[in-house]
Amino acid sequence: MNDHFARRMANVKPSAIRELLQLGAQPDIISFGGGYPDPALFPLEPLAAVFQEAITGQGRSALQYTLSTGMPRLREQIAERMAREQVRCTADQVLILQGAQQGLDLVAKMLVDRGDTIITENPTFLGALIAFNPYEPRYLAVRTDGEGMDVDQLEQLLVQEKGAKLLYTMPDFQNPTGITLSLARRHRLIELANRFDLIVLEDTPYRDIRFAGDPLPTLKSLDTEERVIYLGSFSKILAPGLRLGWAVASTRLINQLGLLKLAADTQCSTLTMTATSLYLQRYDVESHIAVIRETYRRKKEAMLAAIHAAFPPDITCTNPQGGMFTWVSFPRGFDAARFLAEQALPRAKVAYVPGATFFPVTEEANHARFSYTIQDEATIARGIAELGRLLAPTSAKTRTG
Amino acid sequence: MNDHFARRMANVKPSAIRELLQLGAQPDIISFGGGYPDPALFPLEPLAAVFQEAITGQGRSALQYTLSTGMPRLREQIAERMAREQVRCTADQVLILQGAQQGLDLVAKMLVDRGDTIITENPTFLGALIAFNPYEPRYLAVRTDGEGMDVDQLEQLLVQEKGAKLLYTMPDFQNPTGITLSLARRHRLIELANRFDLIVLEDTPYRDIRFAGDPLPTLKSLDTEERVIYLGSFSKILAPGLRLGWAVASTRLINQLGLLKLAADTQCSTLTMTATSLYLQRYDVESHIAVIRETYRRKKEAMLAAIHAAFPPDITCTNPQGGMFTWVSFPRGFDAARFLAEQALPRAKVAYVPGATFFPVTEEANHARFSYTIQDEATIARGIAELGRLLAPTSAKTRTG
Repeated sequence: MNDHFARRMANVKPSAIRELLQLGAQPDIISFGGGYPDPALFPLEPLAAVFQEAITGQGRSALQYTLSTGMPRLREQIAERMAREQVRCTADQVLILQGAQQGLDLVAKMLVDRGDTIITENPTFLGALIAFNPYEPRYLAVRTDGEGMDVDQLEQLLVQEKGAKLLYTMPDFQNPTGITLSLARRHRLIELANRFDLIVLEDTPYRDIRFAGDPLPTLKSLDTEERVIYLGSFSKILAPGLRLGWAVASTRLINQLGLLKLAADTQCSTLTMTATSLYLQRYDVESHIAVIRETYRRKKEAMLAAIHAAFPPDITCTNPQGGMFTWVSFPRGFDAARFLAEQALPRAKVAYVPGATFFPVTEEANHARFSYTIQDEATIARGIAELGRLLAPTSAKTRTG
Repeated sequence: MNDHFARRMANVKPSAIRELLQLGAQPDIISFGGGYPDPALFPLEPLAAVFQEAITGQGRSALQYTLSTGMPRLREQIAERMAREQVRCTADQVLILQGAQQGLDLVAKMLVDRGDTIITENPTFLGALIAFNPYEPRYLAVRTDGEGMDVDQLEQLLVQEKGAKLLYTMPDFQNPTGITLSLARRHRLIELANRFDLIVLEDTPYRDIRFAGDPLPTLKSLDTEERVIYLGSFSKILAPGLRLGWAVASTRLINQLGLLKLAADTQCSTLTMTATSLYLQRYDVESHIAVIRETYRRKKEAMLAAIHAAFPPDITCTNPQGGMFTWVSFPRGFDAARFLAEQALPRAKVAYVPGATFFPVTEEANHARFSYTIQDEATIARGIAELGRLLAPTSAKTRTG
């Protein structure tokens, strides 16, 4: 029994995860660590009003069991939002989930047997690795650059590796790198999925948080053979404490996922679904999202300006066009985890997430994920400047040593 | 991919499940089908107040991410309630779940490999079979009588069947039979678990809904070797729409389950956990439970009186000492599903759940689960009387045919 568990969870490092979750919790630390939305942006009064209405004004139905696939009205509202993204789907092709994270678990449960290959970006979302690991996959991690997953390397790997089943990607403002998959690569990725018979899991919780310009088409909207399973989330546009996300997929796949949802936890909270549906009906979520966008854009600018001013030039960072993270790359040989423990936390009182855990196969120590969402701009500037004071000599030393 | 899914879900009958869920939804039907609590008992005003307080009065923390294991205060409150049941556990040994159903999924995910044996009562809770099936177990179903699982047959099966891992039981007012495991058998079951190296999954969502007398000790309180995983639920004492349950187990097992919870959906809703914790702090949940008990006791009495008055004497039913269900057994050869479709629904406008799907191995067609919770006593009497008018001749015919 223990062997079985140990095998299933071999790649999950509880201490690393707990560390991640707790970094943001210490009061004297300026944390750029947790992937938390800015709580100042939670729409408190509207949420209080719709929960009140859901509890007292819906004939008690919001406290009862409901369909395992989710409240029909909420599924319709999501289908309408998806239509504006050129994703044609019916409400029946929307499955309400306990956050997009549950979609990662259920898709792996549906598709992955021990030893099956999952293709991911390198690096990729830690939560996805945690969700997939209990099904004991093998990972192929595809190199990423400023345009996202390198589709040429993807093609090479697919030619070598017959029988890969599932490609997992976060095409918009990826966690942890902030990078967005380019339009040309989106088309190419769909072509490769068709050619090599892959299911594509498109996980896009940050998609609405675009700082400027028009969104690129979702992979789901480019899907020609019903191969894409789309995951969306209310965590970043409303509040993560609601735990609501959704999947959109072909009728066949969504029905299978719906059965696994029933098996996993019966249904999402009727109350939370009802209140969220009322919120979408009574309030202008697009205006709310516009405020989030503008706030995070300013914070991102503040962080990048501070990094460019304070960090030595051999430390680079991505310039995300949306989302919550920038990915900082230190010179080769630099150990971002060790620097966090020995320097950043004790001396600068600054936290970030060391990048090593985001690599599915071969860990690279010289990166870090910085989130700019929860600190105000002055604190961002101050924290990055403090780090910069420690980094300048270290980095120089690394270069000459 | 399809083969994999088909194999995993072979025993789940989507149509049967959907039928179950929809039986209660038709307005002109008197449904004794769904396992729904009486919505008239939901504490609306208190819940509205605590959700209001959680959203506006907790410094926005109730809408943010929190620990994957659950809100610390709620875990403490549950540990205190468990202590009153003679279950000694710390808050760290409590894991908050998306309903007890999630515990069924996570325990199977932790312990069960394809072909492993799970022991259940015969019949057993359909939701457990749905949760377990994706892990492709083999079932051993142990005969039950008025005292619950037949522990002599259990011992025989364990002697024959080396290597069974998991014993699943609902010892209090079981779903679907309403039967309670006797004290002597509780002790014997723990002895057998120790002797045959079993993990015992004690699922007891109805435990607080006892109509009279003192509760029997939980299996967890009798556990001498940290083999019992206890599952509790707020669905029947507060509201199922909250989707909150919990597990209590040894530190080793709860830590493993906590990791799988993180993998499955990150955490339960911070808001729902915060509001429920506030409810337990501000209101007298025991008084509330006393009202539920008395209400269901009266409804149970009404249903049993009606059955005894209206059904032929060769149709028997259990007399549950708590919970939500009685189990009706028809003469051998009677097909409860066919009678539902051809007679009860169209002619009496009455629904129940045919019993066949509750049998893990060999289905028996001549039983049905009746829930007495959502209909008032007059409607219960009327619905059972209508059924009785149809059953009398059918039963007579079965006897003479």
